[in-house]
Amino acid sequence: MKSGGPSAVPEWADAFAEFAPQMAVRWWDDPTVAPEQVDYALVWDPEPGRLAAMPRLKAIFGSGAGVDKILLDPHLPKVPLVRCVPPEGPQRMGEFACWAVLSLCKDTRGFALAQAERRWKSYDPPFAATDRTVGVMGIGAMGIRVAEMLRALGIPVVGWSRTRKTIPGVETFAGDAERDAFLARSDILICLLPATPETDGILAAPLFAKLPRGAGLVQLGRGSQQVMADIIAALDNGQLSGAVLDVFEKEPLPAESPAWLHPKIIVTPHAASSPSRRDRARYITACIAAQQRGEPLPNLYDPARGY
Amino acid sequence: MKSGGPSAVPEWADAFAEFAPQMAVRWWDDPTVAPEQVDYALVWDPEPGRLAAMPRLKAIFGSGAGVDKILLDPHLPKVPLVRCVPPEGPQRMGEFACWAVLSLCKDTRGFALAQAERRWKSYDPPFAATDRTVGVMGIGAMGIRVAEMLRALGIPVVGWSRTRKTIPGVETFAGDAERDAFLARSDILICLLPATPETDGILAAPLFAKLPRGAGLVQLGRGSQQVMADIIAALDNGQLSGAVLDVFEKEPLPAESPAWLHPKIIVTPHAASSPSRRDRARYITACIAAQQRGEPLPNLYDPARGY
Ligand SMILES: NC(=O)c1ccc[n+]([C@@H]2O[C@H](COP(=O)([O-])OP(=O)(O)OC[C@H]3O[C@@H](n4cnc5c(N)ncnc54)[C@H](OP(=O)(O)O)[C@@H]3O)[C@@H](O)[C@H]2O)c1
Ligand SMILES: NC(=O)c1ccc[n+]([C@@H]2O[C@H](COP(=O)([O-])OP(=O)(O)OC[C@H]3O[C@@H](n4cnc5c(N)ncnc54)[C@H](OP(=O)(O)O)[C@@H]3O)[C@@H](O)[C@H]2O)c1
Repeated sequence: MKSGGPSAVPEWADAFAEFAPQMAVRWWDDPTVAPEQVDYALVWDPEPGRLAAMPRLKAIFGSGAGVDKILLDPHLPKVPLVRCVPPEGPQRMGEFACWAVLSLCKDTRGFALAQAERRWKSYDPPFAATDRTVGVMGIGAMGIRVAEMLRALGIPVVGWSRTRKTIPGVETFAGDAERDAFLARSDILICLLPATPETDGILAAPLFAKLPRGAGLVQLGRGSQQVMADIIAALDNGQLSGAVLDVFEKEPLPAESPAWLHPKIIVTPHAASSPSRRDRARYITACIAAQQRGEPLPNLYDPARGY
Repeated sequence: MKSGGPSAVPEWADAFAEFAPQMAVRWWDDPTVAPEQVDYALVWDPEPGRLAAMPRLKAIFGSGAGVDKILLDPHLPKVPLVRCVPPEGPQRMGEFACWAVLSLCKDTRGFALAQAERRWKSYDPPFAATDRTVGVMGIGAMGIRVAEMLRALGIPVVGWSRTRKTIPGVETFAGDAERDAFLARSDILICLLPATPETDGILAAPLFAKLPRGAGLVQLGRGSQQVMADIIAALDNGQLSGAVLDVFEKEPLPAESPAWLHPKIIVTPHAASSPSRRDRARYITACIAAQQRGEPLPNLYDPARGY
């Protein structure tokens, strides 16, 4: 188990004790654990090669929905790799996405800056959220719930994915051929793509140029997808009007990053979807039980697609 | 017309020109307007006695949903007083209430303070919004839409009003007798009551004591309803865990108010529901047309109830 640091071990152990009392949960560097005795690994960013030394491994569980840090291991064993998507994950992501979209529509970054100066910001009603179309880039486990929750608030939504999807009330676009048409419709763009070679650096000037002028950006995917200098330039020249950034190339975001104090950027600490350890332990326990019954595992990483 | 100050007159005039081209729209202090020629008044805070000098007045339109500033006039003429509730009003209020509730659930005030210090706030997942019950105090035109939109996000909602209401999926409480039972269920309390003698100073220590410990407060009603010293004491002693305050006893909120820099208070500048002047002009034009056809006016102030 390697997720959340040694200080998180007691909480993980308690959570697993509730759902799988017979399971022995041990920290990754526990000297009493022999690699050849490990049945399941729960990891966020394992050191390359360590998993390959566990011959009995029946599955690897990522502790997040994105497993990109695990894929950095060139010796990753060929056992099922399960993304962590308990039902609470998409729900929390949806809550966060709604918060971020409403924050941009109401310019709450402006409120926060005014509050810090004890300044009453006279409020010219900007557009209502229902006047903006939100474009959800990546309509997988997370994006679908995000789209549903935005629609439930009365906000128009369009979506984009690799293969075509059908979501009630949401106009969907698929593949590179329809990408620009999707972007042209997105007054606020939410990125919920996985980190893959195709999505590397995708949030950059050429993409921003395809959005309506003054669009908003909500980045909930992975830091490798964004070019910070281009985001700042687009905010400063008005192509973008505001951004909520939850993920960064380097996390924790270094103090010298220009994102921190930019008046149009809301920085959040990779907090968009954070199901509790208890919710994740319940999900992983259920996955293990399913595998032991010979049933298929959910939310499997697919090497052919790369996510 | 007295709403938004003289600088707002051109925008109001443009808006009315679109929906009622034949209507002459004049500023309140325009010296060419004789009081005896005025048919309709649109006001937020008219000087006492001025409306009584307009004998032809067929209706008074408040420029907001709450008409408490108009009721301060002891000589208010006995013509219909219409609260400004275009359909866009409750929708925007719902958006703001969802934003505020999600802000409290995710402690985004903490994010903002950390951002100002360029500090990555390690994020222990707090409760999900769906684990909190939101209590909506005042389920009138605004509160009903707020309750619906919170429910649409999957958040449990209870409601309280003077007379009993039925809202699908929302448990409702009525009258003083059921107030404490309602409060005991409200992990996050949203106040959407009108300013009346009964609601004066209602958001104070005795009420907070009836909430579950660590409750959140969202004040979207009127500043006369809150006792700021009690809010701050409750936040400091943990009875309240956070607050979003949009309205204040004195607006603009004076620089010396302790609310501004309190680490658990989000201050917004009476911005919760702000339909555009265009939306309000369309609504008022439609009301006037209805009255001229002899149809009933919507959202009338009721002197018997006091709101
Ligand atoms: N900030 C946070 O707290 C947080 C938390 C959880 C997850 N995340 C991020 O969110 C990502 C998505 O999670 P998920 O569970 O929704 O993953 P998922 O179920 O695998 O969905 C990924 C979506 O992206 C689409 N996609 C992938 N590559 C694409 C490409 N090249 N062009 C167009 N569309 C592409 C997929 O298309 P198809 O539908 O056609 O396959 C799918 O719709 C994660 O990988 C992670 O980076 C962030
Ligand atoms: N911050 C902002 O930007 C903003 C914008 C718009 C409005 N507001 C505030 O929101 C208030 C509500 O607006 P609205 O259009 O929803 O008004 P409304 O339709 O008149 O609804 C008022 C609600 O409060 C309830 N109520 C009144 N007095 C009560 C009492 N003593 N005990 C229990 N319940 C009581 C009413 O009960 P019944 O249903 O039984 O009558 C009703 O449910 C306005 O008066 C204004 O103060 C603020």
